[in-house]
Amino acid sequence: MDHVVIVGGGFGGLSAAQSLKNVPVRLTLLDRRNFHLFQPLLYQVATGWLSPANIASTLRATLRHQRNASVLLAEAKDFDVEKRRVLLDDGEIQYDTLVLATGSGTHYFGNDRWAIYAPGLKTVEDATEIRRRVLKAFEAAERENDPAKRKALLTFAIVGGGPTGVELAGTLGEIAHDTLKNDFRNIDPSTTTILLIEGGERIIPSFDPTLSEKAAITLQALGVTVLRNALVTDVGAEFVIVKHGNIPERIACHTVIWAAGVKASPDGQLIASKTGAKTDRSGRVEVEPDLTVKGHPEIFVIGDLANYSHQTGKPLPGVAPVAIQQGRYVGKVIAARLKNRTIPPFRYHDHGSMAIVGRGSAVAEMGRFRFSGSVAWLAWLFVHLSNLIEFENKLLVLIQWGWYYLSRNRAARLITGDLPSAEKMQRR
Amino acid sequence: MDHVVIVGGGFGGLSAAQSLKNVPVRLTLLDRRNFHLFQPLLYQVATGWLSPANIASTLRATLRHQRNASVLLAEAKDFDVEKRRVLLDDGEIQYDTLVLATGSGTHYFGNDRWAIYAPGLKTVEDATEIRRRVLKAFEAAERENDPAKRKALLTFAIVGGGPTGVELAGTLGEIAHDTLKNDFRNIDPSTTTILLIEGGERIIPSFDPTLSEKAAITLQALGVTVLRNALVTDVGAEFVIVKHGNIPERIACHTVIWAAGVKASPDGQLIASKTGAKTDRSGRVEVEPDLTVKGHPEIFVIGDLANYSHQTGKPLPGVAPVAIQQGRYVGKVIAARLKNRTIPPFRYHDHGSMAIVGRGSAVAEMGRFRFSGSVAWLAWLFVHLSNLIEFENKLLVLIQWGWYYLSRNRAARLITGDLPSAEKMQRR
Repeated sequence: MDHVVIVGGGFGGLSAAQSLKNVPVRLTLLDRRNFHLFQPLLYQVATGWLSPANIASTLRATLRHQRNASVLLAEAKDFDVEKRRVLLDDGEIQYDTLVLATGSGTHYFGNDRWAIYAPGLKTVEDATEIRRRVLKAFEAAERENDPAKRKALLTFAIVGGGPTGVELAGTLGEIAHDTLKNDFRNIDPSTTTILLIEGGERIIPSFDPTLSEKAAITLQALGVTVLRNALVTDVGAEFVIVKHGNIPERIACHTVIWAAGVKASPDGQLIASKTGAKTDRSGRVEVEPDLTVKGHPEIFVIGDLANYSHQTGKPLPGVAPVAIQQGRYVGKVIAARLKNRTIPPFRYHDHGSMAIVGRGSAVAEMGRFRFSGSVAWLAWLFVHLSNLIEFENKLLVLIQWGWYYLSRNRAARLITGDLPSAEKMQRR
Repeated sequence: MDHVVIVGGGFGGLSAAQSLKNVPVRLTLLDRRNFHLFQPLLYQVATGWLSPANIASTLRATLRHQRNASVLLAEAKDFDVEKRRVLLDDGEIQYDTLVLATGSGTHYFGNDRWAIYAPGLKTVEDATEIRRRVLKAFEAAERENDPAKRKALLTFAIVGGGPTGVELAGTLGEIAHDTLKNDFRNIDPSTTTILLIEGGERIIPSFDPTLSEKAAITLQALGVTVLRNALVTDVGAEFVIVKHGNIPERIACHTVIWAAGVKASPDGQLIASKTGAKTDRSGRVEVEPDLTVKGHPEIFVIGDLANYSHQTGKPLPGVAPVAIQQGRYVGKVIAARLKNRTIPPFRYHDHGSMAIVGRGSAVAEMGRFRFSGSVAWLAWLFVHLSNLIEFENKLLVLIQWGWYYLSRNRAARLITGDLPSAEKMQRR
């Protein structure tokens, strides 16, 4: 039986695996993490609303009843496309068909040294690290007597005005003005400065301009300062330098979060170098109309790792629905090949996009229809809740959202991972 | 107004703070963590049942409406009992009354080098580390071809047959035989060896012998091997040496968990050296009948840090109810002093003790009454649920328990904290 190896258990890889459920192949899903992460809700972990487990599903449990599927906790180190092998850190695995779905990471546009000052939001560890930094900044401000230092501790800069940046900024606004209102004795959290720094003309540029404007108004009401046409030229331990117009301004700022760019995982370059495929500026692999790599019909590249430009002339966006639909398409191609059939090229069906801006407010676009405010927000809740994989997680997330909307308290506000003492354990 | 400084936000410190709510004092609760942890359920975090946030409550949120209370995220480094000051890493804080409630840590009986091989279960980080090791052991076994190595990976040793050891062993038994049943393709998790190593004659020695026996029978049914009169003489990366009778046996074993002993926090020795108080072999401070330190009526020591022997001639056990009742007593003493009154010595009211052994089974003792099996288990559920601080957490824990009992799936099975790549962030 043919062996399909899928690398990456995100939206693309998992949907490819699941779409092969009744196809007579053997499949191995390889991931370096043991869980699938529902990334669209990761910002809620970063802001202390949900726990990591609420938006994650273990890959083994998800595929436990799919008898043709194995899960392998391992990292792909290299690809031998001649001998059709994936090389692991401690072994190798043979494939007949390879599906690459390793996604993307944070991109600092050549300034990787900013990474330690301005974490991105891609992994569970990123989210708990951002949570730790935000909460510790308020704690440090409570103990700081120097007004200038206190102001820097209570200044948060979010770089990038896409959906993730908007969601983070809106949520931080709520935390400062609402959640923490009565928690401190020496500081007033509502004096917090939250900067959303966008390089372009408007925030959430992938949406209609009227929605960008509505989101900006909602953010301002939440106490967020939106800077447009503002470029970040440097980031350090206690500052960010923003070029707004022609004058670079140094802003004293303890916490910076990077939501400005993503770059395809290095596997893209790796497979390109082995197959002669082209990659674009973001490191994505340019794929054929059937999502395979040119000259290698046995290698598929999908999701954030793929540049698929055959439909609209420009690459499809790096969002979950694209990855999910591409994963399903790969399943169909593999099934069709076993029957010696061909199927039409991949087509993305855009069902719309949405971003939450604050408590009770979102923006949404579905075809020609645009929504904002509470209608969009209810749609957002419904879509995200129904797309979580496990029923238990749907229930837990619903309760935590409901509880937050009643109490305005965020339960998951733990500062962990930095126990300052000898008990801190060495890792084996 | 008098300033009461409470060091430690565990059961003792938090109950002391809350009992001072309507007493005309100013109080500061100092902790190096920003949350109170419900330690009796920590083993459920370690075994992938609950998320850390489910059993933690932020101290600020808990005390937000108690206007005479401030929370300070800081670590006490030393005490100046003459000038009545607590020295912090970056400052100091003056007190009129000091309440020391910094609890206990894992104790390796002079073999601290075992700590890296055999983590204890005292902190959230301990729990996620144990979870990581247990889950990674199964993952490694799935990929291991050498039968001896695979057996070592599927051997788990829990050192110490007290309630924590019994709870861990029983839960691991369920995970191996039930939760993971269909998850793997190359190994059969039900072949897992789980050793519970107890140095004494019987497990849970603080309970009646009939209950020890019942717990042992239940554990055996869950696939746990109970070793009695068995001393651990060495622990290494891939082994544990057990002296059972007179012959030391080397057991190949990848995962060891330490549940054998606790030691009072170093603050006990510190305060003893400053006040001339005595400490016992576990580092606990011997306190007066009113929980103060001899010669220092302004210093209280409570909870796991205190040795209170005035009631029964031997120290009260290091359990949550003792700490909670002592915290409340301290509040009463402080209130009485403000009115120039005295109150009788502290008395612990023992409402019984309980330990869960497996799904649907527990042991419980309440005065002359003893329960085991499902009645004790229901009592255990009720008592633990009703003692969780936040309503939200009660609800979340109840749902996760209910879900587990229906589906036998454990949601919180994430391996985190060891992202094997460059994305891993440096800590500031």
